[in-house]
Amino acid sequence: MKALVYTGTRQMTYRDEPQPARVEDEVLIRVDAVGICGSDMHAYHGHDPRRVPPLILGHELAGEILEGPGKGRRVTVNPLITCGHCEYCVQGRNNLCANRTMIGMTRAGAFAELVTTAFASVIELPEGMSARAAALTEPAATALHAINTGMRSLVRPIPECRALVVGGGAIGLLAALLLQDYGCRRVRVAETNPLRRESAARAGSFEAFDPVAQPPAADAFELVIDAVGLKATRAMSLGAVKPGGVIVHVGLGDWASEIDMRKLTLAEITLAGVYTYSTADLRAAAAALHEGAFGDLAWVEERPLSEGSRAFQDLDEGRTPAAKILLRPR
Amino acid sequence: MKALVYTGTRQMTYRDEPQPARVEDEVLIRVDAVGICGSDMHAYHGHDPRRVPPLILGHELAGEILEGPGKGRRVTVNPLITCGHCEYCVQGRNNLCANRTMIGMTRAGAFAELVTTAFASVIELPEGMSARAAALTEPAATALHAINTGMRSLVRPIPECRALVVGGGAIGLLAALLLQDYGCRRVRVAETNPLRRESAARAGSFEAFDPVAQPPAADAFELVIDAVGLKATRAMSLGAVKPGGVIVHVGLGDWASEIDMRKLTLAEITLAGVYTYSTADLRAAAAALHEGAFGDLAWVEERPLSEGSRAFQDLDEGRTPAAKILLRPR
Repeated sequence: MKALVYTGTRQMTYRDEPQPARVEDEVLIRVDAVGICGSDMHAYHGHDPRRVPPLILGHELAGEILEGPGKGRRVTVNPLITCGHCEYCVQGRNNLCANRTMIGMTRAGAFAELVTTAFASVIELPEGMSARAAALTEPAATALHAINTGMRSLVRPIPECRALVVGGGAIGLLAALLLQDYGCRRVRVAETNPLRRESAARAGSFEAFDPVAQPPAADAFELVIDAVGLKATRAMSLGAVKPGGVIVHVGLGDWASEIDMRKLTLAEITLAGVYTYSTADLRAAAAALHEGAFGDLAWVEERPLSEGSRAFQDLDEGRTPAAKILLRPR
Repeated sequence: MKALVYTGTRQMTYRDEPQPARVEDEVLIRVDAVGICGSDMHAYHGHDPRRVPPLILGHELAGEILEGPGKGRRVTVNPLITCGHCEYCVQGRNNLCANRTMIGMTRAGAFAELVTTAFASVIELPEGMSARAAALTEPAATALHAINTGMRSLVRPIPECRALVVGGGAIGLLAALLLQDYGCRRVRVAETNPLRRESAARAGSFEAFDPVAQPPAADAFELVIDAVGLKATRAMSLGAVKPGGVIVHVGLGDWASEIDMRKLTLAEITLAGVYTYSTADLRAAAAALHEGAFGDLAWVEERPLSEGSRAFQDLDEGRTPAAKILLRPR
């Protein structure tokens, strides 16, 4: 089969690879569309010690089961393969499963014509759902999980809140779109890349602004979603959050930061780290995407898998307005 | 009247002071007992720019209304005087009132025979409640507010959780006692002062340990209450909290810290800053103290107000096992 292989730092090679071998309780999936994630970019830059080349990356996929249980079904997957038995799995928090593995990390991913994974990781798609929408399930579930976590710590309902989304990449943009769908009428998106800023402003009825030229108001937002996770965005988030408010930290750039614990304490701020999504979040995200909660997705760009190397370069150099590029093997 | 006046860094002077003048909507209270708070110690060290000498400190009081509405009632008070009209006050979060003032900070406190405050700040005591228990209402409400905030972010109920309380001062000890009362069967208290450690171990059926000699287990506690708030205790808290768990940050020593945002994010930790208590928390704490939720309070030490200066010195030099010293003007 053809695959786009991460062969070394800033090297993506489109080449023939052996077809993956399916074992019991697994499915073989024909990939229809697969998104490039920020974590794939992180690996591409050589910054992820967990993703060792040569490796087929890619974990945001839509496709059809060719072999195994559920043969013939159109599906997306939970990229995490979880044990189903640990305390987190039985609590419905399988994103924290201590025994988890992940496609595109500990085993081959979906930048390929074919991929295998556990049948238990399969998420069935609503009838008639487009491959474009289906391939967005994973980042949409990340945004949904972040917002739902934040809402649990808010005192007033989301339509009454002001929300700041830091970062107009896929997670930030999907979070802003879902906040709008949840009835939040005052959403602002901070994005430094002008191409992405324009793309975000077209995607929703919220305002996208450049936080360097125009820093967000201090103590002004009940909910802040930091979808970047750098020292600068954390400081911005803590400055912008309103007393009694919530910061959800979903991006992960810098590993450590000086945090203003004085404001966090005296202004009673909740700083919630979130990681990926549960299976319930993925199912909810697929339904929400299919029902239009995230809009028309016109901001998504599609390219052939064979041109994947160029897509990585364009993303790296900020040359595309698309918050998400999907690669299509066929 | 007699009062213990903060006259300069590490100077507490017992002397005659003019009786405070009560204005409309205020009460004049005869003080029966008043606790020394960590924030009073902080001022004593000259570290609180908001508390400027000469000033009568003290805000954890029990007494009787001598003049004004409710004359003759035995009461404690909310040290915060809040506006009652801002968005936080009407949400029941009057600890965040933007217009708040505070006795023992922006106006004279209760290390005195008499004190005045707003009638709206008065908390009526249950019939027959001791002055000792009543004077603990404020720190008990701080502990109650911290635990209740933490519980809102826990996925499983508190009896199923392991809890680490960092610091065996009044807030830490009261938090450990209340966690036990809430049914938490696995509470550990980290305290470096051996006198306080022994006192804490006697007060409840939890284990008190020295975290320097024996660091707490990593990734082990669903709930961590940091009642100290130093760089070292924050690092300890983040190391000890279990994936998916909650840290409640209630102490405030160092103003900023390097925080391991990688663990916070990948292990989905919630870090909740908390500040004081609402009026509802104070009422609940008074009832809980009276009903024995915090035990027999035998660990509390009482001294005459006239010997208050020595009490500050003893606390400063770690020479007393008492997590709380109450001063009694009469």
